[in-house]
Amino acid sequence: MRWWGWGEDREEAPLPEAAEALLRDELGVDPSARSPHVSIEQVGLPESGLSQELGGRLAAAAGSADAFDDSREARIAHAAGRSYPDLVRLRAGDGSGAPDAVLRPRSSDRIAPLLAACADAGVAVVPFGGGTSVVGGVATVRDGFAAAVSLDLTGLDRVVAIDRTSLTATLEAGLLGPEAERRLGAEGLTLGHFPQSFEYSTVGGWVATRSAGQASTGYGRIDELVEGVRLVAPAGELGTRALPATAAGPDLRELVVGSEGVLGVICEATLRVRPAPEARRYEGWSFRSFAEGRDALRQMAQADACADVARLSDEPATRLTLAFGTGTGGRREQLARRYLRMRGHEGGCLAIMGFEGGEDEVEQRRLAAARHLRAGGGLGLGRGPGEAWLRSRFSAPYLRDDLLGRRVLVETLETATSWSNLEALYDAVGAALRTALQARGTPPLVLCHISHLYRSGASLYFTFLARQEDDALGQWEAAKSAAGEAIVGAGATITHHHAIGRDHARWMRAEVGELGLDLIRAAKARLDPAGIMNPGKLLPG
Amino acid sequence: MRWWGWGEDREEAPLPEAAEALLRDELGVDPSARSPHVSIEQVGLPESGLSQELGGRLAAAAGSADAFDDSREARIAHAAGRSYPDLVRLRAGDGSGAPDAVLRPRSSDRIAPLLAACADAGVAVVPFGGGTSVVGGVATVRDGFAAAVSLDLTGLDRVVAIDRTSLTATLEAGLLGPEAERRLGAEGLTLGHFPQSFEYSTVGGWVATRSAGQASTGYGRIDELVEGVRLVAPAGELGTRALPATAAGPDLRELVVGSEGVLGVICEATLRVRPAPEARRYEGWSFRSFAEGRDALRQMAQADACADVARLSDEPATRLTLAFGTGTGGRREQLARRYLRMRGHEGGCLAIMGFEGGEDEVEQRRLAAARHLRAGGGLGLGRGPGEAWLRSRFSAPYLRDDLLGRRVLVETLETATSWSNLEALYDAVGAALRTALQARGTPPLVLCHISHLYRSGASLYFTFLARQEDDALGQWEAAKSAAGEAIVGAGATITHHHAIGRDHARWMRAEVGELGLDLIRAAKARLDPAGIMNPGKLLPG
Repeated sequence: MRWWGWGEDREEAPLPEAAEALLRDELGVDPSARSPHVSIEQVGLPESGLSQELGGRLAAAAGSADAFDDSREARIAHAAGRSYPDLVRLRAGDGSGAPDAVLRPRSSDRIAPLLAACADAGVAVVPFGGGTSVVGGVATVRDGFAAAVSLDLTGLDRVVAIDRTSLTATLEAGLLGPEAERRLGAEGLTLGHFPQSFEYSTVGGWVATRSAGQASTGYGRIDELVEGVRLVAPAGELGTRALPATAAGPDLRELVVGSEGVLGVICEATLRVRPAPEARRYEGWSFRSFAEGRDALRQMAQADACADVARLSDEPATRLTLAFGTGTGGRREQLARRYLRMRGHEGGCLAIMGFEGGEDEVEQRRLAAARHLRAGGGLGLGRGPGEAWLRSRFSAPYLRDDLLGRRVLVETLETATSWSNLEALYDAVGAALRTALQARGTPPLVLCHISHLYRSGASLYFTFLARQEDDALGQWEAAKSAAGEAIVGAGATITHHHAIGRDHARWMRAEVGELGLDLIRAAKARLDPAGIMNPGKLLPG
Repeated sequence: MRWWGWGEDREEAPLPEAAEALLRDELGVDPSARSPHVSIEQVGLPESGLSQELGGRLAAAAGSADAFDDSREARIAHAAGRSYPDLVRLRAGDGSGAPDAVLRPRSSDRIAPLLAACADAGVAVVPFGGGTSVVGGVATVRDGFAAAVSLDLTGLDRVVAIDRTSLTATLEAGLLGPEAERRLGAEGLTLGHFPQSFEYSTVGGWVATRSAGQASTGYGRIDELVEGVRLVAPAGELGTRALPATAAGPDLRELVVGSEGVLGVICEATLRVRPAPEARRYEGWSFRSFAEGRDALRQMAQADACADVARLSDEPATRLTLAFGTGTGGRREQLARRYLRMRGHEGGCLAIMGFEGGEDEVEQRRLAAARHLRAGGGLGLGRGPGEAWLRSRFSAPYLRDDLLGRRVLVETLETATSWSNLEALYDAVGAALRTALQARGTPPLVLCHISHLYRSGASLYFTFLARQEDDALGQWEAAKSAAGEAIVGAGATITHHHAIGRDHARWMRAEVGELGLDLIRAAKARLDPAGIMNPGKLLPG
């Protein structure tokens, strides 16, 4: 991955003209201004805290000389995740988050000796999968440690076992999304887990962050797919049996899932998989308003007639989707707009519904869902919008690089709550973001979509854009802080699928209470007595 | 509930003649022999460890004089759960498991002061809902404590809130099953949680034991229905927010669910509910063999075309169901048998499939399930067997009382594993039970049914019967121990829905490993520093 952004250099996501006009007219962004990133040579790195002797010991524990890498390139590549502040810092040449070295074991057998060597030497360890965290989950924290290393797990890329009868697969943590799907696909299977970071995130990262993919409404969140998990901690190994269900006490799987590297290293997971779908059908729907669409989606979800992918954009998000889309203003698009106007849906909200499975099953489920959507005021728009969404489902982070180069603040955050609290949450977060950024003289565009449905509630995913201030990080902090307070103030969760990392840790007390924090601390004290595992994440300081 | 058995005195479940013959012919049980229970006056109780002063303090903490009860009747009613060994002891007049007093707070506000008073005085606390544990979960453990009290939670019987929009209900822990369903039913809702103990078990007990109901294949296990939970522990209160989903770190709900009273008292839970079903359809199916039926059920579960209740009896269980059923040998039954013989299903296996929901939905799902069952060799038997099962779904514990009075060892145990391991597990447990009891000269009948389906596996529920030895508890221990070893030896879970309690605690190390035990211990040390909460349960000694 590019050290300063997303994807590889060959990837391009140029901004359409309509989007450029919108940024100029609504945010006051100068369309010709550019703010390029520094060159890699200009990135400032901290002095390494590793002596040659200590480096040698870690290399020996890692199992081979090439499993230890303290090159400039490796350190920069592991200096940060891919959040907006991460990229602002990197583009400006701030490599202060870089680890002193990167360890790349080729086998999970090496994890225990590596952690022992680090604990012995007081070296902080940051488990690193694809490095796509958007909440500071892989940031290096040095305070109080002799040194800090990044433990790159992409060398753990084996498919350990596939049980076709039971539809489970045991995968090593470092497998990247596309490779995991390719290997499962060769057996006619799929995990069905497609977070936006899919191309660059790993199985271990998904489990460690309790992630949800775009199709998790249908396939289930990663926490619902974990049958068993293997954690190697400094104090030993915790292997939870792979079981369909058990009543044997507290579920320790659920302590490991979402532990974000602070308890130990998730080396492998046994996951519930499915037959690869014979058919995929993605389609667009329109609703007259966000409220109307929300109620229709709820009816659909509660009737067990739910789409696997179900997303509903609010009015501003719909407008922006059209402006940022590949819409050429051609005849086809004009007809579509005319049709929406005729049906009273002008200025309404776009929804995407996706169905995957057997041919007949997809058709049957699609019809069942459609009954509820239509009864709720929805207007079917056919496959066009669905397929357009599918094509661009992983493209937002590429687009962000372009926006960063134009000095646009662009950030996303997400939460979840009950259906009955959804409107209040939507209003509160939107108002908080608008107020915070308006107060700085950079009024934002705030967009929102419902991204995942449950019988009892749903998640809200916010995107906000504004003209970037010179103090880009201060501006971001003001907005993030206001949104976070609004979320916990509304009784919602601070994160539905981005996890806690460093950036949300201050809200964990609101999330689980002081006693809840103590329980996580007690688990950490037992598993990681030296406290070397991913310091500064998950738990507030 | 009867102090010596199940249900109330007006309930009767006399054994049909065919069953009596079977017990005589196959187990050597003398049909005329009876072994009545002692009278309540003959039950021996331990000396109370509570001084009058301490009793007074507890009564004060409980909030009212009538919230403290150290009467003989109350102590005997809380002396044990409803396992086979529990009933063997009670019927023989062994009340050594009785608490020194029963505390019955009328409000959850009283729990914290009560626990504080108990911790202060070194009094062990056994949370008690309906007292239906079959694994020694409510047994009194005195060792090392000044006294032991039973904390009867049935006074906590409020419906705290119902959110119809989000389909959740916040219920207090002491609500009994029928009352919870009645209150939800008045709002057009159902929880759909029907363990065999339904009539006498409580919401809090379900959550504390991670229970599954007979329809949990469709409605979900209780752990899948808990949106949030409130635990009052000696060290404070842990309230997990009611959320449809979150990525905010380890899921502490899952530490409370299944905690079996050892971490604190579950006072209330917010549960996911559903609209009460418009339609219910239960039907019988026949398979030529257990293996054939198992494969068909797996196909059905993995195709997302699954019944809400799906049970498959093995050949011996099918034979016994027919003998113990109300079959009169009449014309209808003769025709049914002839039909099965003609179709090559004589001596086969009976399955029950139940569907609940909207009228159309039930019909559609029934047809989808039937396609898979038929493709797997199943023969539809219509509604008769399904409705017969529904009528008698809670009757087994009544029948057990009759069998105990005839000196029959009758016990059940359950486990779960992956589909690919199911046959090996079935063979191993059956062989262990037969070998252990044959060796004692009491060859058993071992029956098994698949009781819950998952995409990745299923649960096996075993029932075994034998002539009772004079050393009834030694005989039980030999069988239980052999079965438990066979289960963990096969890599399965020691319990799918009965929980750990006292009787399974010795297998918790095999279940979660030493480090897993330590994590539960660390949580307990934080929440219950004096170690007064339900001692002797969940964790091995």
